[in-house]
Amino acid sequence: MQIISSIQEIQQRMLQLRAEGKTIGFVPTMGFLHEGHMTLLQQARQENDIVVLSVFVNPLQFGPNEDFDRYPRDIERDEQLARETGADYLFYPSTEEMYPAPMTTKVTVTSRTDVLCGAKRPGHFDGVAAVLLKLFNIVMPHRAYFGLKDAQQVAVVQGVISDYNIPVTLVPVATVREADGLAKSSRNVYLSERERAQAPAIYQGLQLARQAAEQGERCPEALTALVRDHIVSHTEGEMDYIQLYSYPELESVSELAGTFIIAVAVKFARARLIDNIILTVE
Amino acid sequence: MQIISSIQEIQQRMLQLRAEGKTIGFVPTMGFLHEGHMTLLQQARQENDIVVLSVFVNPLQFGPNEDFDRYPRDIERDEQLARETGADYLFYPSTEEMYPAPMTTKVTVTSRTDVLCGAKRPGHFDGVAAVLLKLFNIVMPHRAYFGLKDAQQVAVVQGVISDYNIPVTLVPVATVREADGLAKSSRNVYLSERERAQAPAIYQGLQLARQAAEQGERCPEALTALVRDHIVSHTEGEMDYIQLYSYPELESVSELAGTFIIAVAVKFARARLIDNIILTVE
Repeated sequence: MQIISSIQEIQQRMLQLRAEGKTIGFVPTMGFLHEGHMTLLQQARQENDIVVLSVFVNPLQFGPNEDFDRYPRDIERDEQLARETGADYLFYPSTEEMYPAPMTTKVTVTSRTDVLCGAKRPGHFDGVAAVLLKLFNIVMPHRAYFGLKDAQQVAVVQGVISDYNIPVTLVPVATVREADGLAKSSRNVYLSERERAQAPAIYQGLQLARQAAEQGERCPEALTALVRDHIVSHTEGEMDYIQLYSYPELESVSELAGTFIIAVAVKFARARLIDNIILTVE
Repeated sequence: MQIISSIQEIQQRMLQLRAEGKTIGFVPTMGFLHEGHMTLLQQARQENDIVVLSVFVNPLQFGPNEDFDRYPRDIERDEQLARETGADYLFYPSTEEMYPAPMTTKVTVTSRTDVLCGAKRPGHFDGVAAVLLKLFNIVMPHRAYFGLKDAQQVAVVQGVISDYNIPVTLVPVATVREADGLAKSSRNVYLSERERAQAPAIYQGLQLARQAAEQGERCPEALTALVRDHIVSHTEGEMDYIQLYSYPELESVSELAGTFIIAVAVKFARARLIDNIILTVE
């Protein structure tokens, strides 16, 4: 695996690989890799000749009250993990390399952001969009891998790709789960033993909604009530939100049709867990 | 010359040409081609294996008081002229092809726009930036050609390319002039015979400033005064503006250093003419 920190160097390398007919799979991250990232890297490894991982903590996507400086970093460990999954290139630029001069433009994500977790992080997705516009031009991948655990991010990125006709295929990767269905998360370690035993009810509730939709239920409120009731009656967690939107547009719907997302956030004593399912009905 | 109106088709064609090692030169236009466009096409023809011309009247760069519907169009003539200059591809998409769904993001050009002509066209360069982000991803050119007659546009486009690390080289092309120095423009025909005889004083004024700078003058006001005095005393035109800025940043400077632009707009009875020179001093 080669580590490259220069934009010009990786651009030239990628152009050369493309000229040789290689396909390039890209996993953009902020580092401090966890099992979710590993899954993305593994899938990229299976589907492409070349796998590129980027590690860049992007200051543009941190709000004024979000601590960019305190975001966890461990590049040696990231490097080791990337090697183990068979990545070919680790792109690891400095902030100065990525933002050598003040930006002359600003990208604003004007839809898909005022719901779910995005509603609480104004400007966050603007920063995500800007850095991905840069990274897609730098790495020029054929495919880019994003986890569906953050389904809103997937929706926003798909919007950016469509808006600007970026010649990359977004590959959404299914959420990795524990054997009992709980979505894997670095926050799960903050659950008490009792909370950990209850937490699978989140995904169980989402599965109840899936079954009801498959059996013909088309009322959004009925589906979200099923999820809410199951979670509330099986956990001590506090419902932060339970929402249903069209996907990837993330707009409210009065009756189910096409593809939609049911997304939930539950607050336990020391951990806030999120999960979602995306369904398509006729 | 092939005419392509499908984004997917031209993207695939360009990827194939790139895989074959061809270099691609791109001239983005809104059509109704004039001699300036021809110069861009000719230079692109000299410097690249493949020349792509796009003709797209971009609604996003028209203000509410600017008549998008009445913008002149003549695709048959454009096609003929493109053929004559040896273009290989004419990309001619419909508005629906370019904007099939509402945009989910908005690009705002946050600097370089509140001066010169841009100050009078709020939002214009935002639309230019958005469509070029799209077109660069669609055509994937090695080089893109823009005329320095609109030096502000060149500055804005260079900003977009740098901001997003777009793997394209912007080639600024010198303004084409009549034998007497007057910048060529479709508006020159609106000059009276008397005005036409006076109009070369615009470029003469700019040349006086160039000479003064070369001889050591470093005071911006002294240079702009030279231009103003020459134009005012040699024409009946009304000075709309005479400005000097750093280039391409387009910021005010108190003393000359590096690269800067002197730009002028002069109103004659039925035509407003613009011109500029870009100079570098030590």
